Amino acid sequence: MTHISRTQSTFVPPVPEAKRWIDGVTFPPDRPLINVSQAAPIDPPPAPLRRAMAEALERPETHLYGPVLGLPALRAALAAHWSAHYDAHITPDRIAITAGCNQAFAATMAAICGIGDEVLLPVPWYFNHKMWLDMQGVTTVPLPTDDRLLPDAETAHALVTERTRAIVLVSPNNPGGVEYPAETLAALYDLAHDRGLTLIVDETYKDFDSRSGPPHDLLSRAGATDTLVQLYSFSKAYRLTGHRVGAIVAAPALLNEIEKFQDTVAICAPQLGQRAALWGLENLSQWLAGERDEILDRRAAIADNMPKLAAKGWRLKGLGAYFAYLEHPFAMPADELGPKLVPEAGVLALPGTMFTPATDPSGARHLRIAYANIDRAGVGRLFDRLAALDWPLAGTDAPA
Amino acid sequence: MTHISRTQSTFVPPVPEAKRWIDGVTFPPDRPLINVSQAAPIDPPPAPLRRAMAEALERPETHLYGPVLGLPALRAALAAHWSAHYDAHITPDRIAITAGCNQAFAATMAAICGIGDEVLLPVPWYFNHKMWLDMQGVTTVPLPTDDRLLPDAETAHALVTERTRAIVLVSPNNPGGVEYPAETLAALYDLAHDRGLTLIVDETYKDFDSRSGPPHDLLSRAGATDTLVQLYSFSKAYRLTGHRVGAIVAAPALLNEIEKFQDTVAICAPQLGQRAALWGLENLSQWLAGERDEILDRRAAIADNMPKLAAKGWRLKGLGAYFAYLEHPFAMPADELGPKLVPEAGVLALPGTMFTPATDPSGARHLRIAYANIDRAGVGRLFDRLAALDWPLAGTDAPA
Repeated sequence: MTHISRTQSTFVPPVPEAKRWIDGVTFPPDRPLINVSQAAPIDPPPAPLRRAMAEALERPETHLYGPVLGLPALRAALAAHWSAHYDAHITPDRIAITAGCNQAFAATMAAICGIGDEVLLPVPWYFNHKMWLDMQGVTTVPLPTDDRLLPDAETAHALVTERTRAIVLVSPNNPGGVEYPAETLAALYDLAHDRGLTLIVDETYKDFDSRSGPPHDLLSRAGATDTLVQLYSFSKAYRLTGHRVGAIVAAPALLNEIEKFQDTVAICAPQLGQRAALWGLENLSQWLAGERDEILDRRAAIADNMPKLAAKGWRLKGLGAYFAYLEHPFAMPADELGPKLVPEAGVLALPGTMFTPATDPSGARHLRIAYANIDRAGVGRLFDRLAALDWPLAGTDAPA
Repeated sequence: MTHISRTQSTFVPPVPEAKRWIDGVTFPPDRPLINVSQAAPIDPPPAPLRRAMAEALERPETHLYGPVLGLPALRAALAAHWSAHYDAHITPDRIAITAGCNQAFAATMAAICGIGDEVLLPVPWYFNHKMWLDMQGVTTVPLPTDDRLLPDAETAHALVTERTRAIVLVSPNNPGGVEYPAETLAALYDLAHDRGLTLIVDETYKDFDSRSGPPHDLLSRAGATDTLVQLYSFSKAYRLTGHRVGAIVAAPALLNEIEKFQDTVAICAPQLGQRAALWGLENLSQWLAGERDEILDRRAAIADNMPKLAAKGWRLKGLGAYFAYLEHPFAMPADELGPKLVPEAGVLALPGTMFTPATDPSGARHLRIAYANIDRAGVGRLFDRLAALDWPLAGTDAPA
């Protein structure tokens, strides 16, 4: 048998792969590339936050190792924010700070799962979740979703086995955009609780949820401290992607386990990023509300422009957070469509095949549009380019 | 069978554990705690570097995601530095930047090892190496060392099996301090090359090696590109511990595998730390030479003060980098000695048991002194306190 290392058990990372599609391609000045491939702000943090960061560099402790589970002041501030946002009582000892939300996921799964365990992941999934489970030797059990990209507890229940350890959800969803209704989350929570599983909810995009008030009541449900783990990122809210700060909300006993992973893989999250996140929590809530308004306007622009594409056979499957998940009408799989869009439409977007099992035909029919970096006018231009594509259409009997 | 998660397969991280020993202990003002537990500078980076970091915050790209394997300019600068330091030709595509050297190790092992593989680790080892191998499901094979803490190829050869994938060395050594002679490294390299293993050399402390010129010729040996992996940290050289920047020097094909791990666990190393490391490589070589002189003086202070301890039955087993590895004379195991030193001597140091297998009696006889943060006078005070300890001695027939 050929030897397989942990990394060899998974696939090439999609974002760097897609970036290679634009290598050597030139775009005319009057028709620049529209890059909707990555869910990341491209503007720097607001000026007052940049000044606060420069000031933090003058304090010696910003340059030193900090506690493995994060700065106490940041843990306390996020606990207070979380308590208010979710109408719950979260103490600082239930918060850990990580170097980004991907690391929050990896650390959490290492603390929960052993080799050969199983985890339920709704399809389409966030590819880095799948990659980490592969590398950890955990079996990903694809959880089908409905036409609105929502999983349901009944389907999930049928997939739970003795090896199942967790159900992982992302809401608002990446790649699908869909905001999970509170009742969907509650039903999956109850299943997890009844079966002794952990429910992990990645809430990276919570600050851009279109709904007002707490998006769910999971934290007040029986057993929530032990059953629920929430993951978060400061990257989107305060435009701190390059500074690597995320968080985990979980039981203190689980955080003790997570501390082992963090000590070994990270030692601590970067100290400047942690201070920036703290300053943001303390000073930028009103600014962030404006950011949310802008993202919601871009989301509305997608809906407003959708008729242009619908007339050409496209369907909008999910919309929210930073994402629109589109079903395309063409007689070619999305993993051909993606690279072809670069020279022919001047568009870089990730194909659904990057978010689905290789055996699942739905990936080939979809395209993820990460629209956070294009304004209303940019959405119009993007949709004009897509609507102008004159490629052979899939027959009506093609798999939807 | 009880379910075991990946983190449950390993032990509590030593540094946070030792920090808890000082909780609630008060130290008189005229006899403050001497903390020699952690290998980390406690002074901030030099002022010109801090200014360069503040300027970097004014450039938008410092706040954004960067390439998974690191900033091209930093990869190129480290390649040039490496080529000069090791008298070799290293191209930028053989360099990856990570969020610290612990992460460099984790990513490398994930790219090389599968579950159930074996890795040889000289004893005493760096605990985070052991912890990661535990969490990855890789079996650590303890490689005994001689009285100077050096492994040898013959002993290693006898421990290689069909499951062995790598030999991991740290030189200059943590925790032992010993600088591995070039011939020791060459012999272990030849063994690795002959058996198709990877030789991993963690050279975090290379900048404080007391020898002049290249410390080894491994990079010019046959097959080095594929057999050798070197790990590095910018934390010690430029006092950037809080900013999390390390590096891997390896074959481009291996870095492609490592990119999967980095994308999933880190996305990228922090951007500000990378710019600081680049500025350091370009501007701080003379400053770093002064830092090395200071560390070498502290090392000399250890040797100069050693007679005080030798008179009380202590032995110096290894000295170099940031570390002295001492054999203590007392009739108690080091894991009792460590916590007892805090209130009774005002000293925090890690016991040898944190660096050895539970079944190995040598750990109980040793103490690691991380002396980088105490100057010559501080070394004198530390040794006076240790020499004054009036505790029962182990018999001469106790295990050495």
